[in-house]
Amino acid sequence: MAVYTDITEDEVRTYIAQYDIGDVLSYKGIAEGVENSNFLLHTTQGQFILTLYEKRVNADDLPFFLGLMDHLSRHGISCPLPVTMRNGRQLGALAGRPAAIITFLEGMWPRRADAHHCEAVGRALARMHQATTSFDMNRANGLGPAEWRPLWTDCLKGDEPLDASWKVDIEATLAVTDTQWPAGLPEGVIHADMFPDNVFFLDGDLSGIIDYYFACTDFLAYDLAICLNAWCFERDHAFNLTKGAAMLRGYQSVRPLEKAELDALPILARGASVRFLLTRLFDWVNTPEGSMVVKKDPTEYIRKMQFHARTTDAADYGA
Amino acid sequence: MAVYTDITEDEVRTYIAQYDIGDVLSYKGIAEGVENSNFLLHTTQGQFILTLYEKRVNADDLPFFLGLMDHLSRHGISCPLPVTMRNGRQLGALAGRPAAIITFLEGMWPRRADAHHCEAVGRALARMHQATTSFDMNRANGLGPAEWRPLWTDCLKGDEPLDASWKVDIEATLAVTDTQWPAGLPEGVIHADMFPDNVFFLDGDLSGIIDYYFACTDFLAYDLAICLNAWCFERDHAFNLTKGAAMLRGYQSVRPLEKAELDALPILARGASVRFLLTRLFDWVNTPEGSMVVKKDPTEYIRKMQFHARTTDAADYGA
Repeated sequence: MAVYTDITEDEVRTYIAQYDIGDVLSYKGIAEGVENSNFLLHTTQGQFILTLYEKRVNADDLPFFLGLMDHLSRHGISCPLPVTMRNGRQLGALAGRPAAIITFLEGMWPRRADAHHCEAVGRALARMHQATTSFDMNRANGLGPAEWRPLWTDCLKGDEPLDASWKVDIEATLAVTDTQWPAGLPEGVIHADMFPDNVFFLDGDLSGIIDYYFACTDFLAYDLAICLNAWCFERDHAFNLTKGAAMLRGYQSVRPLEKAELDALPILARGASVRFLLTRLFDWVNTPEGSMVVKKDPTEYIRKMQFHARTTDAADYGA
Repeated sequence: MAVYTDITEDEVRTYIAQYDIGDVLSYKGIAEGVENSNFLLHTTQGQFILTLYEKRVNADDLPFFLGLMDHLSRHGISCPLPVTMRNGRQLGALAGRPAAIITFLEGMWPRRADAHHCEAVGRALARMHQATTSFDMNRANGLGPAEWRPLWTDCLKGDEPLDASWKVDIEATLAVTDTQWPAGLPEGVIHADMFPDNVFFLDGDLSGIIDYYFACTDFLAYDLAICLNAWCFERDHAFNLTKGAAMLRGYQSVRPLEKAELDALPILARGASVRFLLTRLFDWVNTPEGSMVVKKDPTEYIRKMQFHARTTDAADYGA
């Protein structure tokens, strides 16, 4: 539920006067996204999303994020296009925060994803990976394997008591990712957060991918491993092999995985699970009661991590 | 920030198939309104608001609320029009909750209201009062003077310690409203919650009034007293006589107040202040920490109530 900063009509009017997008008719805070304040902006020229970047986003990264969206939309990927101001820039300032206006994408994110969605996501992810080969900006993954152990140490400092068996499982995973994380896999710009609420569908077709604010340079197959975690488990936390197979089939129909990537899938998926487990756990133990942020239950990712600890090869994911 | 119930694309699609409003293109939860779940719905025929009524709203009252909006929009008041389903009804069911689709109103609520806004609000309120004279449904005010003392007793049962001077002031007000509340003033259907976030403006003109979910049958001048509380105080809680005069002028340009109404203004305004003070205080002492609801600081209304305790006649409000 994200509107951290409210804005006045005058502020909005003054801000959008820097763009060629007509006059403001209405703006409403959207209860989606957790990092920034998002408004659905209606002007005489149509609908847009107005985003104020809050302090959890590093302002130095914004040119990368906006540049990536710009690059992807110009290369046939359906994603929001940052609107350019008359001064040629895409990044402005509003209510003391960095701000941007991006185009509005129609479509709805699937609350109950099926194999058809998973295949479409795999295909779109591979297309995105291909389209970013010609994008010349880089951003290190601030939540990569090297950050997981420090994050875990921070979680242990919290007041929240952690289940002893969780500790054993997390330590076991970190022992593996610390020492056996692959090297030399194909790299590129990855989305790194392609969860169902960031992918829109319309009439059964994937209509757009949003929220590039975790995008970074990393192994392409790691992005796929994140999607396997985000899309292919059931509500009871069991892995759905049909969905996994559909996602891998979709991905490989566009960009076939190399053998080294397929071999690395179990550890990449295990790493992806501990990455989301640790950030959720960190928020869980550190978010004060009474804050507006919805804390996501870390348990889901404990169960996923336990599944990945038992897999041995890509066939366990449906390849 | 209000999305208490999320809904799936299939649920939305099935629901809107009962209407003649085209096919769904997108829906987004809106971070506005505190009682219900609101979605901005975009279909091939335009924008609408989809509301799921949560348990704080009594389902038996919904025909009154929807009937009132329907009546007002057909009598020239700019307010959302409930969309009628093919079966002739305006109230449906979605995700186990009563639901309705209403038309979308352009405009923005004034974050910083000035005297111009106050005059427009006074005028619109009087027009609404006139338009409801031909509306034949009734609804008792569930938060009228008779409910204030029980509400206060409940507040005192909470764990939150209350300032001793607050207790004295609230008791003093209730002693007055219990014994001197006026009788026989002109009655009708009142909005009862016309705060700035329920009134939209576009290009300086009032473009619409939303959120009729506290509307009820009561003294018309009490509705005006609520608006004086909601619009005419500054951030430092001082009453702004210019704004009060503008609001009264706007109201009386459409519907001149009777002498008895003008005479009653101080006690009506004092009553209105204690009504909002008590519901805020009740939420303050009873909302658990960690809930998603934004608790509104009751202090603001203590200060307003103290002002009204010192007024003697309508001139103190700018009449």
